[in-house]
Amino acid sequence: MEKFITIGERLSTTAPIVNKAFLERDPEPILKRAKAQLDAGATYLDVNIGPAEGYGEDLMKWAVQLLQSNFDNVPLALDTSNKAAIEAGISVYNRSKGKPIVNSADAAGRIENIDLAAANDAIVIALCNGEGIAADNDERMGYCTMLLERGLSLGLTEDDMWFDPLFVVIKGMQDKQMDVLNFIGDLTDMGLKTTGGLSNNSNGMPKHIRPIMDSAMVAMAMMKGMTSAIVNPNDLRLMETIKSCDIIRNATLYADSYLEV
Amino acid sequence: MEKFITIGERLSTTAPIVNKAFLERDPEPILKRAKAQLDAGATYLDVNIGPAEGYGEDLMKWAVQLLQSNFDNVPLALDTSNKAAIEAGISVYNRSKGKPIVNSADAAGRIENIDLAAANDAIVIALCNGEGIAADNDERMGYCTMLLERGLSLGLTEDDMWFDPLFVVIKGMQDKQMDVLNFIGDLTDMGLKTTGGLSNNSNGMPKHIRPIMDSAMVAMAMMKGMTSAIVNPNDLRLMETIKSCDIIRNATLYADSYLEV
Repeated sequence: MEKFITIGERLSTTAPIVNKAFLERDPEPILKRAKAQLDAGATYLDVNIGPAEGYGEDLMKWAVQLLQSNFDNVPLALDTSNKAAIEAGISVYNRSKGKPIVNSADAAGRIENIDLAAANDAIVIALCNGEGIAADNDERMGYCTMLLERGLSLGLTEDDMWFDPLFVVIKGMQDKQMDVLNFIGDLTDMGLKTTGGLSNNSNGMPKHIRPIMDSAMVAMAMMKGMTSAIVNPNDLRLMETIKSCDIIRNATLYADSYLEV
Repeated sequence: MEKFITIGERLSTTAPIVNKAFLERDPEPILKRAKAQLDAGATYLDVNIGPAEGYGEDLMKWAVQLLQSNFDNVPLALDTSNKAAIEAGISVYNRSKGKPIVNSADAAGRIENIDLAAANDAIVIALCNGEGIAADNDERMGYCTMLLERGLSLGLTEDDMWFDPLFVVIKGMQDKQMDVLNFIGDLTDMGLKTTGGLSNNSNGMPKHIRPIMDSAMVAMAMMKGMTSAIVNPNDLRLMETIKSCDIIRNATLYADSYLEV
């Protein structure tokens, strides 16, 4: 069992301070958030620049070089609907600490990101959905199979495709939570890697509840074999839970200091 | 999916204050600990009087009547190696809130507690071990089958036998943790109910780590279908985790106030 991989989600234009820093090419807020996430144990950093029409290529190159030069070639997930920006980012990306991740492809409008990842020897996050959220696990598996076949036919390996079941909101879709978890189990049984935006499950809940619910969810997902997640690494309870599940899964060796590393 | 059942473990002679109160028939410390556990959401209370040779019958009757008369016939687990004391406790036990639990039988020296439970229409916790801890899941399943057959032949129903896989210490048996969890999954697949002394896993760990590790473990066990556990209900993090997993399992309906009930 390999150690669980966390992809830090806090460099995103959805945060006004990050959006402003990206637009102004202001390194300080970016570096501060990057450091906070890495200090908390993030493996990858997600770089979400939004659609960034017209300036995405320049911005993604700037962000990749800024982060990798300051943090020892930290591996990155390039997160935008702007394909040219992803390719521009990869063109300056240093692979010494891990391949870039293309975030993300799906079985509908973003299916060509599978091709982009294959052409650039990148990892791709493959969302198991088409237009809208899958109604059940049969539909999820249909999308997964389609994406997997396309990726393999283009030269991607199974290790380079990380499948995202799409976590759904408990408030409104409570009775679908076990489906999502069981689907992760199905992918695990197929030998596939898995990831996802875990905190979707707790959207709309009171702020003090979200770390509690997210921690319960990640532990249950890890029991189902989940291999990575897109998370806020500065959620201490969540990171403690991930580290503890990695001990239970025997992916890291227990030491009394395991929470501190 | 039924709501997870917690059996509060804090009324035990292993705590000097409880031991003294049992010996002196002093109600106050007992009632205080009982109330704290029930306020925190415990379903059952375990009453562990130790071997109590010579005075166990009188003590168990006193404890059962004290607790049930003060807490609206709270359901109890009667926990002692003294069989006469268990039968004495059952003789005065009020079943209006649930059958008494006999804690516990195993496949070695305590196998006759299966018979005792059957003769008294009680639930029995059946430890899947013989002399010493089972080496692997085949051995655990052998004990389980033996105990199950004995119970069924004596008139117990499957719902009245709660199988305990025996949680093992991470410090020393880290590579066996997934076996225990997978065994819970095997029992769930057989339609059986499960329980266990969850915190065994974190024995010997620094005090601040135990609630974190126990919470990760209970979430993973609940993903495997575990139906109850013997726990410290005053471990807030653990109880929050159990309540959250019950939401995810769709065993209780989500409300923003779910942690408060």
